[in-house]
Amino acid sequence: MEKGTLYIVSAPSGAGKTSLVRELVRTTPHIAVSVSHTTRPMRKGEKDGADYHFVSVDSFQQMIGRNLFLEQAEVFGHFYGTSQAWVEEKLEEGTDVVLEIDWQGGQQVRRRMPDTVGVFILPPSQEALYSRLTERGQDGSAVIAQRMAKAVSEISHYGEFDYLVINDVFEKALDDLKAVVRSRRLGLAFQKVQCQKLVENLLNQTVVRNSR
Amino acid sequence: MEKGTLYIVSAPSGAGKTSLVRELVRTTPHIAVSVSHTTRPMRKGEKDGADYHFVSVDSFQQMIGRNLFLEQAEVFGHFYGTSQAWVEEKLEEGTDVVLEIDWQGGQQVRRRMPDTVGVFILPPSQEALYSRLTERGQDGSAVIAQRMAKAVSEISHYGEFDYLVINDVFEKALDDLKAVVRSRRLGLAFQKVQCQKLVENLLNQTVVRNSR
Repeated sequence: MEKGTLYIVSAPSGAGKTSLVRELVRTTPHIAVSVSHTTRPMRKGEKDGADYHFVSVDSFQQMIGRNLFLEQAEVFGHFYGTSQAWVEEKLEEGTDVVLEIDWQGGQQVRRRMPDTVGVFILPPSQEALYSRLTERGQDGSAVIAQRMAKAVSEISHYGEFDYLVINDVFEKALDDLKAVVRSRRLGLAFQKVQCQKLVENLLNQTVVRNSR
Repeated sequence: MEKGTLYIVSAPSGAGKTSLVRELVRTTPHIAVSVSHTTRPMRKGEKDGADYHFVSVDSFQQMIGRNLFLEQAEVFGHFYGTSQAWVEEKLEEGTDVVLEIDWQGGQQVRRRMPDTVGVFILPPSQEALYSRLTERGQDGSAVIAQRMAKAVSEISHYGEFDYLVINDVFEKALDDLKAVVRSRRLGLAFQKVQCQKLVENLLNQTVVRNSR
């Protein structure tokens, strides 16, 4: 069994990353999204182990001390991190893994595991980004300004990724993501392992018949 | 406009390469299949300029002398070759080009133009290959043996290609081919050119709004 591929999917907030990844994972075999550890409180409707692994600040800091995170970040006073052991276990069993993280997390992951495939998702226009960032309509201008600054910072790192997907029409962007994942599984390194018996069979058996 | 990608598609005879490439080109924008030059006589139903550019042995040899072929081969006493000028013109205008050639042609092309993407198509089993190679049912065993030998030689070179597609179910193999082409167009090098204005717009305009 050939190892799975580790995908890093990043995007400015409001580009539709989470919905796209959810649909990708739901409709594609052999791919899973990583569930992060976090110290932020559980929100209504969230499930421990499904949305996040909810842990105490103490536990989180112990995990940092034991070097267990592939990447970690502090956002608005809460910690978030990706367990390296879980990711490696999935990859070993041949499952692709998707990490939904920002460019800084991406850099951390690439340092530890260079064989990643990065996909950056962009909104189709400045207007679309602006309206998605403000669409709840109840946020003050300071909050919106903060989000905008974060979006700009995120977008400025798009050049660190391998693929660029524009999320204009959702279904089209989803098909783009699927094409990336599908094509990686057709790559020689992967297929050489997957199709070893077929190739041996074609080469040997054909020779046998041929020499009759 | 970013340059197109040059695809080399190879397969043992009977793997369904020609039908797959025909459907790929029919259903995908910005991609064309190269029309070879040949010295073999035109067959019933063929059109000059569509199936092949039919030329005399003299003309063909003049083209060789002027170094005009990206690759060339002699098969059963007839010459076949791919015009480099046509391929380069298509790539320059942003069109992907597919060459349906064998592994030897592939090696010649890669020497002249290293930036190619190779796709190798395999039949799903030894039985399928054998039955496809003999399906006309009127060929002598010497002809079949010759075809088999050529198929084995072709398959032994699959490791020189970037992608491996198994043609078991036609539609699935076609979707595989399409995913390869689609994903290449999502690659950073291509998208950087394609989306340059969008990215600039997202970065600059967002800053402007942000500073209001």
